[in-house]
Amino acid sequence: MSVTVSEDRYNKGIKHLETMNPHSFRNLEKALENVAPDMARYVAEFAYGDIYSRPGLDLKTRELATIASITTLGGAKTELKSHIHGALNAGCTPREIIEVIIQMAVYAGFPKAINGLYSADEVFQERNEKI
Amino acid sequence: MSVTVSEDRYNKGIKHLETMNPHSFRNLEKALENVAPDMARYVAEFAYGDIYSRPGLDLKTRELATIASITTLGGAKTELKSHIHGALNAGCTPREIIEVIIQMAVYAGFPKAINGLYSADEVFQERNEKI
Amino acid sequence: MSVTVSEDRYNKGIKHLETMNPHSFRNLEKALENVAPDMARYVAEFAYGDIYSRPGLDLKTRELATIASITTLGGAKTELKSHIHGALNAGCTPREIIEVIIQMAVYAGFPKAINGLYSADEVFQERNEKI
Amino acid sequence: MSVTVSEDRYNKGIKHLETMNPHSFRNLEKALENVAPDMARYVAEFAYGDIYSRPGLDLKTRELATIASITTLGGAKTELKSHIHGALNAGCTPREIIEVIIQMAVYAGFPKAINGLYSADEVFQERNEKI
Amino acid sequence: MSVTVSEDRYNKGIKHLETMNPHSFRNLEKALENVAPDMARYVAEFAYGDIYSRPGLDLKTRELATIASITTLGGAKTELKSHIHGALNAGCTPREIIEVIIQMAVYAGFPKAINGLYSADEVFQERNEKI
Amino acid sequence: MSVTVSEDRYNKGIKHLETMNPHSFRNLEKALENVAPDMARYVAEFAYGDIYSRPGLDLKTRELATIASITTLGGAKTELKSHIHGALNAGCTPREIIEVIIQMAVYAGFPKAINGLYSADEVFQERNEKI
Repeated sequence: MSVTVSEDRYNKGIKHLETMNPHSFRNLEKALENVAPDMARYVAEFAYGDIYSRPGLDLKTRELATIASITTLGGAKTELKSHIHGALNAGCTPREIIEVIIQMAVYAGFPKAINGLYSADEVFQERNEKI
Repeated sequence: MSVTVSEDRYNKGIKHLETMNPHSFRNLEKALENVAPDMARYVAEFAYGDIYSRPGLDLKTRELATIASITTLGGAKTELKSHIHGALNAGCTPREIIEVIIQMAVYAGFPKAINGLYSADEVFQERNEKI
Repeated sequence: MSVTVSEDRYNKGIKHLETMNPHSFRNLEKALENVAPDMARYVAEFAYGDIYSRPGLDLKTRELATIASITTLGGAKTELKSHIHGALNAGCTPREIIEVIIQMAVYAGFPKAINGLYSADEVFQERNEKI
Repeated sequence: MSVTVSEDRYNKGIKHLETMNPHSFRNLEKALENVAPDMARYVAEFAYGDIYSRPGLDLKTRELATIASITTLGGAKTELKSHIHGALNAGCTPREIIEVIIQMAVYAGFPKAINGLYSADEVFQERNEKI
Repeated sequence: MSVTVSEDRYNKGIKHLETMNPHSFRNLEKALENVAPDMARYVAEFAYGDIYSRPGLDLKTRELATIASITTLGGAKTELKSHIHGALNAGCTPREIIEVIIQMAVYAGFPKAINGLYSADEVFQERNEKI
Repeated sequence: MSVTVSEDRYNKGIKHLETMNPHSFRNLEKALENVAPDMARYVAEFAYGDIYSRPGLDLKTRELATIASITTLGGAKTELKSHIHGALNAGCTPREIIEVIIQMAVYAGFPKAINGLYSADEVFQERNEKI
């Protein structure tokens, strides 16, 4: 039945989010609850239930690829910091995260790489991570 | 002495490129030889000699992060295909490459992910790679 | 049951695509069938089954908003042309499409607006549309 | 005579702005008055006098297309909020605005759509709009 | 009177275009004549009549700034090549153009700089320019 | 010897930075010292030691091209303000800087040009520059 199944994708996504970044997702749900609660649901269902749940690539590499992408986009600091948390929670070291962002200087230019590093610095300080 | 040393970064970069993607780099050098040969040199020295040579992140993950970034940029098909070759040469499976590009639908939007998949398809067909 | 329901989102999306742009979707499916058939499925399920099927905004306006977005992205000609077809199929006039793209000169700059107009011109000529 | 006519485009633009968003335009004029007052004049003359005044597309759809474009650009929160005000003033419902921004998840990626929704939420709260 | 004056901006723009790049503008007019002739008029009136005609910055520097911007956008090859022609016609040397594009590697990333250099190479070969 | 020479590129870059923008570079070094001190070194070595030190284009034009590029990127306010300082230190007038940013309305769209002007206004006020 449809409701059940849609809950399956949602629950599969939530299960992933619980491991990776429960805090950020709860913040997102809260921030969107008045304006567009469906958007938080799509994050759980599509981004995590469909995409992050796919086999073929480990979670650590998925988070590093996402950090590469959001650093390249620029101007999405909240989302970048959320995925730096997610990468650490998935088992990436601060050093691996820093290496991905430094590398973005080559592909997305120095300003975006530098801004990405500032976001990483903030997350590492919040969590008392040593690089 | 300066010339020697600059050659060291260049040679370090070239050594990396020889493993990863000698064909693409020679095409780049040739394509730039009349207009800006220094640019090919910077690719060897800075991108490969400085950045890809850094410890702290394995080459396969570096190539997947680059594929994430160039897919997100959009509109740089030659460079994307070159790094899909590089990722395969570094030992990534076609499946891992596809997973990174599909995931970009979430962060960079469907049009860029779809265009990235077309580039991957072309590379896989050129090399007879099975997914 | 899960398979059934996932088919529901898929079928809902396909129903939308059949009205709006069956030809483009079949081309997409074919182009992705070797490299990433799941991506075509996500287009049907998420883009059309989840998003385009939402109430609260008519299909014509949805297509014009998409044309605004892809013109702003730049460099995604196949997808832009596909949605110009979709907009015409949804009942937009060529004039409305042109007006949206011209307006992008203000927000995304002249080069992207001009490239968007070239894509529109190609679609209108293929379909013998008068502006 | 030249001055008179340039005033015509300016006045045509201002007339539009008075209906759509007089408050935002006055803020813009004030913010630019020391650094580049001509830029505010170009907004009135070109963006509103030339483009928004064109026949062939209603004002509501123009504002929704602009919201799609600025959400896709990312990183231009002041301008996005100004056009969300403009869309409401032109008669769009909060629901229509939200639908356009949610749809941008497909074309511009989730981070830009989510940031767009945060801007919409701020505007709706300022104006006490119910969704 | 309005018609006269609008012609003044148009004529001022056309005068600029005649010096800088009459060939590219005629191609643009022709390419847009069926789909959106007004867009070519806005290029003449706004881009050239209003902006390029402003005092305070010489034409050569204006063209180099435009080349920097379009290289940074990426994916707008026709427009980039048109402005490389414009820069040469305005008196820039091939070397100055190359230097601006190489520098974009730092700010917009290597892929966009390399693609910009390919466009420059094509223009220089068409015109038999020596670097 | 390698260390010596790498210091040569660094020192050449630092010499440039001392003339152009010593204050911004020291802020950058400090901001990156815990997270990625190598990134500040690459700014000195590659951006300034390799690129800005190249002959063939004067420093003032280099800074204006950079301002065009960062305005076009959008969302990198710290870096844009740093280069507006750099341009003034290199001898550009406030008027020349404003002209480049206004011109970006044509190529990168009005929102990015307007945001660029706000950054310029802040720098001019900090330095008491008259336009």
